[in-house]
Amino acid sequence: MIKEPILDIAHLAHLEILTPKFEESRKFFIDVLGMTQSGEKGDSVYLRGWDDYERYSLKLTASKTSGLAHVAYRVRSPQALERRAAALKGSGFDVGWTDGDLGHGKTFVCKDPDDHTIELYYETEWYEAPADKKPALKNQAQRFPARGVNVRRLDHWNGLAVDIKANREFYEDYLGFRLTEQIVLDDGTEAAMWMTATNKSYDFAYTKDHTGTKGRFHHVTYALDSREEILRAADIFLENGVFIETGPHKHAIQQTFFLYVYEPGGNRVEVANAGARLILAPDWKPIRWTTAERAKGQAWGLKTIESFHTHGTPPVEVKNH
Amino acid sequence: MIKEPILDIAHLAHLEILTPKFEESRKFFIDVLGMTQSGEKGDSVYLRGWDDYERYSLKLTASKTSGLAHVAYRVRSPQALERRAAALKGSGFDVGWTDGDLGHGKTFVCKDPDDHTIELYYETEWYEAPADKKPALKNQAQRFPARGVNVRRLDHWNGLAVDIKANREFYEDYLGFRLTEQIVLDDGTEAAMWMTATNKSYDFAYTKDHTGTKGRFHHVTYALDSREEILRAADIFLENGVFIETGPHKHAIQQTFFLYVYEPGGNRVEVANAGARLILAPDWKPIRWTTAERAKGQAWGLKTIESFHTHGTPPVEVKNH
Amino acid sequence: MIKEPILDIAHLAHLEILTPKFEESRKFFIDVLGMTQSGEKGDSVYLRGWDDYERYSLKLTASKTSGLAHVAYRVRSPQALERRAAALKGSGFDVGWTDGDLGHGKTFVCKDPDDHTIELYYETEWYEAPADKKPALKNQAQRFPARGVNVRRLDHWNGLAVDIKANREFYEDYLGFRLTEQIVLDDGTEAAMWMTATNKSYDFAYTKDHTGTKGRFHHVTYALDSREEILRAADIFLENGVFIETGPHKHAIQQTFFLYVYEPGGNRVEVANAGARLILAPDWKPIRWTTAERAKGQAWGLKTIESFHTHGTPPVEVKNH
Amino acid sequence: MIKEPILDIAHLAHLEILTPKFEESRKFFIDVLGMTQSGEKGDSVYLRGWDDYERYSLKLTASKTSGLAHVAYRVRSPQALERRAAALKGSGFDVGWTDGDLGHGKTFVCKDPDDHTIELYYETEWYEAPADKKPALKNQAQRFPARGVNVRRLDHWNGLAVDIKANREFYEDYLGFRLTEQIVLDDGTEAAMWMTATNKSYDFAYTKDHTGTKGRFHHVTYALDSREEILRAADIFLENGVFIETGPHKHAIQQTFFLYVYEPGGNRVEVANAGARLILAPDWKPIRWTTAERAKGQAWGLKTIESFHTHGTPPVEVKNH
Repeated sequence: MIKEPILDIAHLAHLEILTPKFEESRKFFIDVLGMTQSGEKGDSVYLRGWDDYERYSLKLTASKTSGLAHVAYRVRSPQALERRAAALKGSGFDVGWTDGDLGHGKTFVCKDPDDHTIELYYETEWYEAPADKKPALKNQAQRFPARGVNVRRLDHWNGLAVDIKANREFYEDYLGFRLTEQIVLDDGTEAAMWMTATNKSYDFAYTKDHTGTKGRFHHVTYALDSREEILRAADIFLENGVFIETGPHKHAIQQTFFLYVYEPGGNRVEVANAGARLILAPDWKPIRWTTAERAKGQAWGLKTIESFHTHGTPPVEVKNH
Repeated sequence: MIKEPILDIAHLAHLEILTPKFEESRKFFIDVLGMTQSGEKGDSVYLRGWDDYERYSLKLTASKTSGLAHVAYRVRSPQALERRAAALKGSGFDVGWTDGDLGHGKTFVCKDPDDHTIELYYETEWYEAPADKKPALKNQAQRFPARGVNVRRLDHWNGLAVDIKANREFYEDYLGFRLTEQIVLDDGTEAAMWMTATNKSYDFAYTKDHTGTKGRFHHVTYALDSREEILRAADIFLENGVFIETGPHKHAIQQTFFLYVYEPGGNRVEVANAGARLILAPDWKPIRWTTAERAKGQAWGLKTIESFHTHGTPPVEVKNH
Repeated sequence: MIKEPILDIAHLAHLEILTPKFEESRKFFIDVLGMTQSGEKGDSVYLRGWDDYERYSLKLTASKTSGLAHVAYRVRSPQALERRAAALKGSGFDVGWTDGDLGHGKTFVCKDPDDHTIELYYETEWYEAPADKKPALKNQAQRFPARGVNVRRLDHWNGLAVDIKANREFYEDYLGFRLTEQIVLDDGTEAAMWMTATNKSYDFAYTKDHTGTKGRFHHVTYALDSREEILRAADIFLENGVFIETGPHKHAIQQTFFLYVYEPGGNRVEVANAGARLILAPDWKPIRWTTAERAKGQAWGLKTIESFHTHGTPPVEVKNH
Repeated sequence: MIKEPILDIAHLAHLEILTPKFEESRKFFIDVLGMTQSGEKGDSVYLRGWDDYERYSLKLTASKTSGLAHVAYRVRSPQALERRAAALKGSGFDVGWTDGDLGHGKTFVCKDPDDHTIELYYETEWYEAPADKKPALKNQAQRFPARGVNVRRLDHWNGLAVDIKANREFYEDYLGFRLTEQIVLDDGTEAAMWMTATNKSYDFAYTKDHTGTKGRFHHVTYALDSREEILRAADIFLENGVFIETGPHKHAIQQTFFLYVYEPGGNRVEVANAGARLILAPDWKPIRWTTAERAKGQAWGLKTIESFHTHGTPPVEVKNH
């Protein structure tokens, strides 16, 4: 008999991102991406897309450097939280319980094998739009801002990792994520992976960190409603002097329509649209891409840009590479 | 402590639809909607959108009349199938086990309180594209047909029911679907409901059958990748003399961008796009729409067309109404 | 031998629109439509879309009522201006020369048979973007605003007229516009017309004023780059409480994808997209629509809204109608 | 006083393209691009987009090699044809009169300084759709095919030329085309030009032929209604094994959204969308791009692909380059 799946993770909830240029980064997320500030505490502001149902999906924190401070997933129930904590306890990946943060309650903290910090929680604060941000339709969290790129909601994030396979096994065994696509080199090394706990084809991805440094960050992605909006976003980035790294184009892997830029603090940010693509099969067979297939570039032939393999945050000095 | 959710249903899998104009209906689904025939047996053909991962998502059966013969849901695991069967056994809604049909194995059959036949199964046949339908990208089930409307995948279906509340409770209690939106009249009567087992905001809906007839069908919906493709679909329906009932426009409820037509057999077919809207919250609070809110019409002001409340299949003679 | 065409009019240049709610109208055009104020004089502000090459395309003037004060066309050359003035002199439609207005020079003024005031000029002021509105690409007049609906450029306008045929003949004979489509009732009466001096399929239209009042205004239209942007505009109008009269939908006549709203002063405003449709034939054969064809409604079946036949500005009291 | 413009050319009418793989090329244009065959004569087939108003916009001719046989422009009137013939007579560029071809009458033939053959005519055959291709809306030339890429209409073409400046002067002086954008190298050499006789921002372009060979062809472009359709076209090309050279992306010059492929005969074909961009100014000031600006690549940063500078048809052997 097939082992039944772990279904305790509900969805990717938020990221905490560090920036050495706090005020410029804040302006980028609000004025250019069209996000809304929904909280402020210490060195951080809390930001949201107009369709994020929780209070925020991005915590932006002033720091000496860039990168990811933590990523948070919401679980399906209080029981699910206890189950995940129990499974992690004593695994060597567990850090322990906290009281939570602005917007969410009791939290279990752990680390993936690559030292990225992960928070799990159930209790959350639903966003309550103030009068000037009330939407016309009550099945929408917040009024459409009509400002900048108008990102809709957090979609996924991408980490760098030294050992992809170890990370994959951690996410499968302890958190129940399912592998949907992966890159496996000719020598059998896993070079990248895409995993999901939802019907989105990925909630996160990891790609190999060639510098051998642990805990680094590749990008965060916000969803827009159409490819047309991604194209318009490219115009808006151009007008605002934002560095466009690559795109708009369509990934061969996952077929996402993408556009990558760097925010002022140096972190890579993607806006993307997946069309109507969903993973509905409960037993989806992971798609394995080979070295030769990867060499073909993106779906319509765009070569994968070199910096995509080298730029991560925080920056690291590479010596023998 | 909150009761944990039933998570046994994976997704809506297929519908069997009856048509009194078999050949014309078949042509409509293949030539106009752009579906592919992937099987044939007895009085039925089996059809699929280019991104449906199973062998088919629509069984079209020649009949004296129109309407829905059955709807099938795939469950998450063999164990999930046994659990649902066990829960239903003796409930009065259970029909019993069958060996399945072309494309899927062992099946448990039941009926909702309104007499719609429901099939549940786990074992399925993944679509294997023949050489001339192999896609260029291996994470796609079938080559994009570039013919007609090019529907991507089955999205949801809509039934009519005499007692919406009874149906809602059945789907919640026995199958674990979650209510996301509903219409509740001023006198407290439930008039429509939208439910989901996935991150789509609905896998099916039921609206009140004012004729008091049980088991009728409102429509089946296929997803397209963009609103732009829905607009182009409208052109294609117009060119092909297909009756456009209403749309393209945006529903206030669920915010789906929609277009409704009648296929030659009389059944209503929708093509739709939801943008990047997903229900990620595991504890989504159902949106309740009132009579007054419904009277406002669709999102941008289009009045809901009268036939939307009256046309169902099979047709029924209405006397004192 | 065929008579050669008059090619003196270059394009529709701007409209002067009256509003009894000046400040609210101004805010609508700037905050909701995304226009830019590029001048101010007396009771007027001058407004522009981001791709209008002249200083402005809309003059908004405070008034006791709503409606159109004048419409202006730019001619192709100084000689063309003299030719048109000479043709009009003594015709009974001529008003005479003025020194122009903010943004344009020497102007010949005339009236159409329905008393709409028309200005013709050649000398114009090209828009010079200030530093904060400089575009990234130098073949663009102004930076993309990324605010509200982001209208691109003035596209066309629509007047009401008591005698459509008389107006058509005036525009053909004195100004060289070409008829591209028209509505002719079963009794031979012309009920509406669409005319052009460019490769757009119309620079203006006139529809019959059933109140028998002369000089009234139906709407002004701004072009957006895609149908997708029209759909998003509908969301933005909804969020801002702007009255949506009808649309988005596709006209059967001219096939324009349209959306009509009322600005706070009561004037109807359209945002539209024509796809890649152009009239390239120098001898285009006007399309004639009959009463029966009009009764079919818009392209995809939407019934033409009643107010479309009755709402014009300024409002008029209708007695025996 | 400014000299008045020559307004005799109405629009780009058709191209005759040579292919050494006639049957494969024919299939590409019909099955993949979605064109319709509307004539056949000798070694040629005549093809059209669904919105081309004349009988055809592409004559495809079997040949030993690839390239352009001729390009044809329709003039505005019989008088305009006589005027252009008179201007060209004795210029050294004139070839003389012919009786025309399938679909058009009396024709004056000339050559540009780079030896591309140009035909000018007025009398034309409007496309008459047979019963199965009659459109639902009578202001449309032909039914929307719903097959392949569904190209709408011929948009522009691009030639290679050894001496860009000489070609520009020829088109300005003899045919009245207006320069809208150009590339001028730091040493003052003109390296590329875009010219128009319509409100499209270009009806043709020429780029420098670095091989020093005259009369070569760079590409022909068909217009689609939206950028979304260009993206879908990329999928269709991918599925059909058509070589995608570059795109989809947005040109900095002219801001066209583009996608380039090679048809089986080796000729480059573009599908493009210009949004609502039009050149309405009768005195448009040509945009001049410098070497440094060109080095920035396309609008959103895509580097201009090397083959764009080297691949032309027919192929030529390059020795000392």
